[in-house]
Amino acid sequence: MKPVITAFKDSPDLGRGQARDMRVRWALEEVGQDYDVRLLSMTELKEAPHRRIQPFGSIPTYEDGELALFETGAIVFHIAETHDGLLPNDANARARAITWMFAALNTVEPPIVEREAFMLIEHDKEWFAKRRPLLDDNVRKRLGELSAFLQNAEWLDGEFSAADLLMVSVLRRLDASNIPEPPLILDEFPSLSAYVSRAEARPAYRRAFNAQQRVFLDNKGVSATLK
Amino acid sequence: MKPVITAFKDSPDLGRGQARDMRVRWALEEVGQDYDVRLLSMTELKEAPHRRIQPFGSIPTYEDGELALFETGAIVFHIAETHDGLLPNDANARARAITWMFAALNTVEPPIVEREAFMLIEHDKEWFAKRRPLLDDNVRKRLGELSAFLQNAEWLDGEFSAADLLMVSVLRRLDASNIPEPPLILDEFPSLSAYVSRAEARPAYRRAFNAQQRVFLDNKGVSATLK
Repeated sequence: MKPVITAFKDSPDLGRGQARDMRVRWALEEVGQDYDVRLLSMTELKEAPHRRIQPFGSIPTYEDGELALFETGAIVFHIAETHDGLLPNDANARARAITWMFAALNTVEPPIVEREAFMLIEHDKEWFAKRRPLLDDNVRKRLGELSAFLQNAEWLDGEFSAADLLMVSVLRRLDASNIPEPPLILDEFPSLSAYVSRAEARPAYRRAFNAQQRVFLDNKGVSATLK
Repeated sequence: MKPVITAFKDSPDLGRGQARDMRVRWALEEVGQDYDVRLLSMTELKEAPHRRIQPFGSIPTYEDGELALFETGAIVFHIAETHDGLLPNDANARARAITWMFAALNTVEPPIVEREAFMLIEHDKEWFAKRRPLLDDNVRKRLGELSAFLQNAEWLDGEFSAADLLMVSVLRRLDASNIPEPPLILDEFPSLSAYVSRAEARPAYRRAFNAQQRVFLDNKGVSATLK
């Protein structure tokens, strides 16, 4: 029996792999676990059958027999706990990797998501231009601290782990705004750009990326290469 | 040997238990684990010795022998994993509790923190009044979904767990703005107010609250009752 995850039928990221199902797909690919996907429309997301397993009406979810989970971080952690390959065996190294999983989602992602939402929702407000530097600087502060920690290390703490999977997924959201704005903030931090590229080159990442992109291409009938 | 956590020497919350060391103190009290506290000034937070264990320059941290952790969620999880009392033993119930830990920190807390920061940092900007309803509504949306899920249940999923500890701590931040604004948004959701009160009545919560308040009173020499 394969686990079943949910994903957007029409992802607002246009197949760029920035919706959160990508993180779960990537984790499943890293550990070699087959899975099925149930696609949901924006309407279905908010309806009772989905709300029963995802009270906040978003994707992804993860169902495996009687177990139903939501929250990307928790799903990735569950996959890492029940398969080899995404968390170290040494107890202290494992605790540090979990620290970085939470850091990705709770310290680095919030200013990135806040800035993204601001650019999508408030770009036509009279305060947009004045307020934007504040949000850019909040992101820069976190990236600067992360970059100072990472330096030229390959991964956050020894081998690639679920922490890198989440941190890279968070950093990739910097390119999610649909608003052209080169140069990208990430480009100001070469060691972080290289870190993201290193992760994107992993075979498991490519398989997950292609799988989520296929959903977009199949639904839209678009044949252009999107990335 | 007792674990050592860090906390603010001069907490900006004025002893109201909204700084994140409260969450770790509460977890340690729930499992009956003694601990020591190292207090840090705002300057010390940003300096190299602390940055070596907390790359983002904030509190709390957790040190136990050779292990050094940061990120409140990860520290609470580590305490829950290494002691009895904060996570269920049943594997599926445990995975669901972890889901709610991530939901507290990643789905419910971000709009609360964004609104709090907006009120503290941008209250004198010309866009403050126009923009505030957007932030209030983002918080209301999440509280409405949480309230619809919780209904009149005592805790999120069966017995009290680390998930409730984090969720209640997140909801208590709604009173953190230092800007008088009755009625509070939380009061619009009576089942959530009751949930927070239920948690605040736990002996372990009271011990943790009193311990962090004592730091403020000792440092400020203030004798007034703060809550």
